[in-house]
Amino acid sequence: MGADERLKAVLPPSIAARGEITLDAFLAPIRDVLNRRVFPDDSLSDEQLDILLKLLSSMDTDKDPEAARVGEREARIASPFVGMLSSGFNHGIGRSGHVTAAQPKAPGASLMQQVASSVALDAIRKLGLGSVKGGFISPLSTGMSIALTLAALRRTQGIRTVLYPRVDHESPKRGIAMAGLKEMEIPTILEGEAVCADLSALTKAIKDNKAVAILATTTFFPPRESDPVKEIARLCQDASIPFVINNAYGVQSNEVMKAISSAIDAGRVDAIVQSSDKNFLTPVGASIVVSPHQESIEAISETYAGRATAAPVVQTLASLLSLGFSRYKALQEEQKANKKYLECRLDEIAEEVSQRVLSVENPVALAMTMDGLDVREIGGRLYNMRVTGPRAVEMGAYGSCIDDYPHSYIVMNSAIGATKSDVEKATTKLYKEVKGLLSEA
Amino acid sequence: MGADERLKAVLPPSIAARGEITLDAFLAPIRDVLNRRVFPDDSLSDEQLDILLKLLSSMDTDKDPEAARVGEREARIASPFVGMLSSGFNHGIGRSGHVTAAQPKAPGASLMQQVASSVALDAIRKLGLGSVKGGFISPLSTGMSIALTLAALRRTQGIRTVLYPRVDHESPKRGIAMAGLKEMEIPTILEGEAVCADLSALTKAIKDNKAVAILATTTFFPPRESDPVKEIARLCQDASIPFVINNAYGVQSNEVMKAISSAIDAGRVDAIVQSSDKNFLTPVGASIVVSPHQESIEAISETYAGRATAAPVVQTLASLLSLGFSRYKALQEEQKANKKYLECRLDEIAEEVSQRVLSVENPVALAMTMDGLDVREIGGRLYNMRVTGPRAVEMGAYGSCIDDYPHSYIVMNSAIGATKSDVEKATTKLYKEVKGLLSEA
Amino acid sequence: MGADERLKAVLPPSIAARGEITLDAFLAPIRDVLNRRVFPDDSLSDEQLDILLKLLSSMDTDKDPEAARVGEREARIASPFVGMLSSGFNHGIGRSGHVTAAQPKAPGASLMQQVASSVALDAIRKLGLGSVKGGFISPLSTGMSIALTLAALRRTQGIRTVLYPRVDHESPKRGIAMAGLKEMEIPTILEGEAVCADLSALTKAIKDNKAVAILATTTFFPPRESDPVKEIARLCQDASIPFVINNAYGVQSNEVMKAISSAIDAGRVDAIVQSSDKNFLTPVGASIVVSPHQESIEAISETYAGRATAAPVVQTLASLLSLGFSRYKALQEEQKANKKYLECRLDEIAEEVSQRVLSVENPVALAMTMDGLDVREIGGRLYNMRVTGPRAVEMGAYGSCIDDYPHSYIVMNSAIGATKSDVEKATTKLYKEVKGLLSEA
Amino acid sequence: MGADERLKAVLPPSIAARGEITLDAFLAPIRDVLNRRVFPDDSLSDEQLDILLKLLSSMDTDKDPEAARVGEREARIASPFVGMLSSGFNHGIGRSGHVTAAQPKAPGASLMQQVASSVALDAIRKLGLGSVKGGFISPLSTGMSIALTLAALRRTQGIRTVLYPRVDHESPKRGIAMAGLKEMEIPTILEGEAVCADLSALTKAIKDNKAVAILATTTFFPPRESDPVKEIARLCQDASIPFVINNAYGVQSNEVMKAISSAIDAGRVDAIVQSSDKNFLTPVGASIVVSPHQESIEAISETYAGRATAAPVVQTLASLLSLGFSRYKALQEEQKANKKYLECRLDEIAEEVSQRVLSVENPVALAMTMDGLDVREIGGRLYNMRVTGPRAVEMGAYGSCIDDYPHSYIVMNSAIGATKSDVEKATTKLYKEVKGLLSEA
Repeated sequence: MGADERLKAVLPPSIAARGEITLDAFLAPIRDVLNRRVFPDDSLSDEQLDILLKLLSSMDTDKDPEAARVGEREARIASPFVGMLSSGFNHGIGRSGHVTAAQPKAPGASLMQQVASSVALDAIRKLGLGSVKGGFISPLSTGMSIALTLAALRRTQGIRTVLYPRVDHESPKRGIAMAGLKEMEIPTILEGEAVCADLSALTKAIKDNKAVAILATTTFFPPRESDPVKEIARLCQDASIPFVINNAYGVQSNEVMKAISSAIDAGRVDAIVQSSDKNFLTPVGASIVVSPHQESIEAISETYAGRATAAPVVQTLASLLSLGFSRYKALQEEQKANKKYLECRLDEIAEEVSQRVLSVENPVALAMTMDGLDVREIGGRLYNMRVTGPRAVEMGAYGSCIDDYPHSYIVMNSAIGATKSDVEKATTKLYKEVKGLLSEA
Repeated sequence: MGADERLKAVLPPSIAARGEITLDAFLAPIRDVLNRRVFPDDSLSDEQLDILLKLLSSMDTDKDPEAARVGEREARIASPFVGMLSSGFNHGIGRSGHVTAAQPKAPGASLMQQVASSVALDAIRKLGLGSVKGGFISPLSTGMSIALTLAALRRTQGIRTVLYPRVDHESPKRGIAMAGLKEMEIPTILEGEAVCADLSALTKAIKDNKAVAILATTTFFPPRESDPVKEIARLCQDASIPFVINNAYGVQSNEVMKAISSAIDAGRVDAIVQSSDKNFLTPVGASIVVSPHQESIEAISETYAGRATAAPVVQTLASLLSLGFSRYKALQEEQKANKKYLECRLDEIAEEVSQRVLSVENPVALAMTMDGLDVREIGGRLYNMRVTGPRAVEMGAYGSCIDDYPHSYIVMNSAIGATKSDVEKATTKLYKEVKGLLSEA
Repeated sequence: MGADERLKAVLPPSIAARGEITLDAFLAPIRDVLNRRVFPDDSLSDEQLDILLKLLSSMDTDKDPEAARVGEREARIASPFVGMLSSGFNHGIGRSGHVTAAQPKAPGASLMQQVASSVALDAIRKLGLGSVKGGFISPLSTGMSIALTLAALRRTQGIRTVLYPRVDHESPKRGIAMAGLKEMEIPTILEGEAVCADLSALTKAIKDNKAVAILATTTFFPPRESDPVKEIARLCQDASIPFVINNAYGVQSNEVMKAISSAIDAGRVDAIVQSSDKNFLTPVGASIVVSPHQESIEAISETYAGRATAAPVVQTLASLLSLGFSRYKALQEEQKANKKYLECRLDEIAEEVSQRVLSVENPVALAMTMDGLDVREIGGRLYNMRVTGPRAVEMGAYGSCIDDYPHSYIVMNSAIGATKSDVEKATTKLYKEVKGLLSEA
Repeated sequence: MGADERLKAVLPPSIAARGEITLDAFLAPIRDVLNRRVFPDDSLSDEQLDILLKLLSSMDTDKDPEAARVGEREARIASPFVGMLSSGFNHGIGRSGHVTAAQPKAPGASLMQQVASSVALDAIRKLGLGSVKGGFISPLSTGMSIALTLAALRRTQGIRTVLYPRVDHESPKRGIAMAGLKEMEIPTILEGEAVCADLSALTKAIKDNKAVAILATTTFFPPRESDPVKEIARLCQDASIPFVINNAYGVQSNEVMKAISSAIDAGRVDAIVQSSDKNFLTPVGASIVVSPHQESIEAISETYAGRATAAPVVQTLASLLSLGFSRYKALQEEQKANKKYLECRLDEIAEEVSQRVLSVENPVALAMTMDGLDVREIGGRLYNMRVTGPRAVEMGAYGSCIDDYPHSYIVMNSAIGATKSDVEKATTKLYKEVKGLLSEA
């Protein structure tokens, strides 16, 4: 900064030296992010993130006091506040035909995006998918990123139909439709109390159809269990069909990540899409798309039409750096402990009110039966009692991912970032509302 | 705020009264935005925008200190800085199957989005399209919003092919492909020095094809002129085919807006897409989609897969409020004056170096011939001289929107928000570089 | 905000209701601060503090868009960033002859200051001085606030000389001089290893001098112990002389606060001055002056010449609200535990290196002998090793508050806000440096 | 930043080079401030000021992640928001006995303070006082800085009494009292319509008293005119007595600065005190103290008791850099034009209502007679009509700086930073209120 010599000239030497040590300690992690571009072990502080983003955005041409700007799109902004809303990345990211390409008017945003995607890819590798080779932060949430991925497969692989083991969730279905593809729902089967993909039906569908891809799901609410991605990857390899994994909030789970890693090793996986908000405590808006093949990532990037808002990428970068590997591992431990605590609480309540916690594998969620109770009423009351997130499903209703599921039930999560206090408050209120409903009856 | 009585109790009455007057004057425009939801006559200050967004984001459930959050997606964030990057709208906007629907976990973001879309629609109406009935701020740039609009038409109207009068621009083509549609390019013809859509070829294509929609363009670089949207709208009405207008940066131009308005009156228009950054001095990332039919807007909103980042919507809202109608009109006047100034300067330079300014209608841009010169070299030099935005095209190259255009040329813009100083610096450097090149030869 | 009805009109009723609940929960503590003006039990969040300050500063006349400002001092600012540096309180606080009086141009700053002083006074009461009746946040650090307090006593009580039981600290001495008063140092005596005020010398000085006041000290570094404020208050009452207590960082200590409370009950105390940064985790710059007599506070406020910067008052208000009573009590508990931990560590080290922890009462600090060692060298090395705060004093040197103190020693603190990690790192490095020095010898 | 090579490695070379050019252009003025420490010709942008302050505050030891902090005062803060309120300078400035000395715990704040004082001194030199040799930004407003300056003279020169040509203003009087000095008011005389210091009375007082200093005033409201500082400086030199000039808002006036410059050349001047808010568009709270003698500045700095808040110094530095010499000169031109405009408007109104603009020299203010009118009523009405700053004085009342001034009058200012619109609105309202009052009578 040139401040070094100045410090020495104007301050007593020992004080100046102390100031340099502190400044170096402050700037070192920022330099490290720019130089190594990996998921750091230690968190960056908010002040460090602030400086990092300011330096990067100060490279974009709209910041150049000497620039003569005579394009139709020059990142002009209505007021300083508006510029602050974009962290100064007023040019957004990308070029007309390639959302991850360097934008000549925005060297800073281009560098920011490359650093962000590199850090994100490294994070996914360190958190379990060591064999993925390419990845980027998509400025779209999971559903739209699935659309983008499938549209790329349509363009490069000529797919027309997506085989989709049933999940009762609108976003991925809309994503399939957005890409102009036909969704073919693969039915599920009941295994004990768990709802699982019907592999034999899937195998048959592969045989009976042409120009298909498969979209599988690792994380959804119980009683739905994860799709067997390893087996599906083998089927895909054998049949030479593309395979996309919706890993919405699976990064937080070592088990899910291990399963995907095995799938990559054992068969064909074209792309894995994960939410940045559900896994990395980022505001809603981005997802991380990774692949064992760099060329798949290129194809997906080139499918995006035009430039994009930089905001979700900036937010994901900041979140990843604010977390760092050590804090993330600690959060994973906390998540596991909280899930165990949630299970205890629900077991207690279930016993009190003669219900049962369903026996279903799920990394973050548990479902308790609500048989004979007005479960939707309970859901509504919990919402009004300021409990957000529980999922109340009536017996046989849409949401169970199978026709005629034999229980009403309520689902609660203890995902990464949730606190013990969340679990405690939510279960206490659940107990109260169920007891209340029983006494009213 | 309850501060009213307190003020009176602790401060001398005349001072307290003065404080209330000031606070009321400060808060009145904020209240007005929430109550009337129109494009205001007067600008809001940055401080007012800040308070407005803070109050809105404080309604989202992740701000509730008493909330028990047991969903898998609860807008948890990695640090306060990360939350600031989203202006507090950590839940993003929308629901699984509807990007403009109210999100139960995010009442504040839901209200923000409704206010934003209402203000944007009102702005479009006041700036020339009085007869549009519905509109929303899409959290996607123009190219992707065209994809979204076309995907909605595919879903609701069964279109399979898009007739697209040739424009040499990647984004809209990628948008058509993203929606899984076939692009059929309609050729252009030379009229004098201008490149125009070939209406007879378009008419023929309408007859020869089924399940088509038309995508026309109002704003591109000279020598390409605007498509005749009124005539096309009539063709569309007669043939009952959907019509989408890419009005990327046309809002700033009264002429373009008048032409679109006539098109709506005279024929069929399904949707008009405009960039928020090119027209409203917003960071890149959003567009405003409007339609004479509210149901078209609904269909487009329902095509988006899942939630979206709130950032581009927040940025557009802030820009619109920071501008207001009066300031926008003043900026339009300034734009016209600057364009006239650009024309003078280019005329002078052209005469000096024996070239000519092309005779082409365009609301913001002008092209000067560069015949016999290495125009790409000049483009490169200007970039290095910190001139951003000029477009250098060789005779016959892609970019002219026609095969075999008979001139090399360079395009400069004087769009809304550009300053006289931009024009002055850019043309001075252009002159210097051309003279330099000539003397080197 | 008028948003209430709007919410109901545009959002589904249950979602709108949920938004209002959250907004109310967010705003309630802010309203409470303005209405009750007490040290709250619970912390306010940073977002709440931000809104509180913005609303208050928006009452000042420089924010009024309709104001015509024709004074020589109208809180004009060079840029928005500069305004942000003052949190918008550009008019500062106070009037020409009264720093706590309402300023007609600044109703918001005036209200802010009244709220701040009221909250501060309540905090001091709740933390042990229940019988103080008036107080305010002085925009000056402890030393200058002592000057202000003594200057007020000069003006209203005609004092000319300050009897000051010896403390080897420059600030209070400069404060006495700043007020144009003569300092008469009262010697100290050794009681065991502790250095204490010589009460008999003080009693004699009272008899021998006229127009005196006494300035006593509750908190300094060992081996100096607190002055016996109860006994001195009695002397002051008997002799009708003013008594000022420098309670720099005593608020954090229940023992110190109890002693001062007894002094108020038993005798005469005119004012008690405490640092806001040392007690309330505020940036350096303010102090809290309290008194059993409201008229003393008035006299002190009226002694300040002209307006003052609002910043230290704003910072102290924000800190007090960010802490709240519950968090403060928890921090006090942590401080006590850390001090105990510091004592253990120093005992261990002392034993290892044949030194001793001095037997001196002090709420936050401990001193370990460094006899026979180059203690200044150790101090310098610790500074370079990034240990800040230890105080290294050679046998007999200035700093011990007595001539010929028989030990060299090093002092370490575990004050409020320090962490266990601070203590651990500092003592580890101390051990290493002492061992290093011993091995070098 | 180490980003240089990275840029080259990850971005196309021409884009990377463009990014570096922009970043260099952005950082160059920041480097320049640290290296040359002068009042710059050109303004720094808000973004540049932000980075400058963040880098400086990042040198303080409380930012060091490796620091072990075991002092009683370690700049711990209650929350990140509180730290933001001090721009990160949590340690404040100064040491126990010297407010401008380097603070070992705060190398960044120490450097900031040195840069700030150097820039301020350079500004004062460039704006007219070329021969001053030392200066610093006092963290106190004008009144308290006068107290500090006089207290230093008491300490170093043994002064006991201050001869003060009458100005009806509380702050300086309180400043004299705060320093424990006796104020001896020197009467004024009427010269035409102007109120001036009575030099012969002053000369007599110099002869009749011992241990005196003189405090003169350059800027006050008409009818009071500036004191003849050149003549007084000569008297002081001849009599060997200290001379302090209260130049509250005189920096903006070339005439006032010339007069002071002549005083320095012709006689003895010990210190000149100027407001930072009145001259440099800074929030209230600091002043700039300069002297022809560096040792005077040292003595004043050493008189301050303890550390101080960094905020007013930071704010003044930011204001000076945000202004720069070129913008300041432009503001001075604007001020002169606005004052001329104010004079025209008042002349017009005066003629309409049969009053007169007083013939008094003043750089920024004008007074119009209000003879026969209830001038206090008009003052009150203007305040309620949102006109701030006018000064309404009844015939013979305190405020005219003389007994029995023969007019009632109202004063309006057009000081630096005021706009033509301020003048227009204020005079229009004045006219309306005077006419209203006349018609009511």
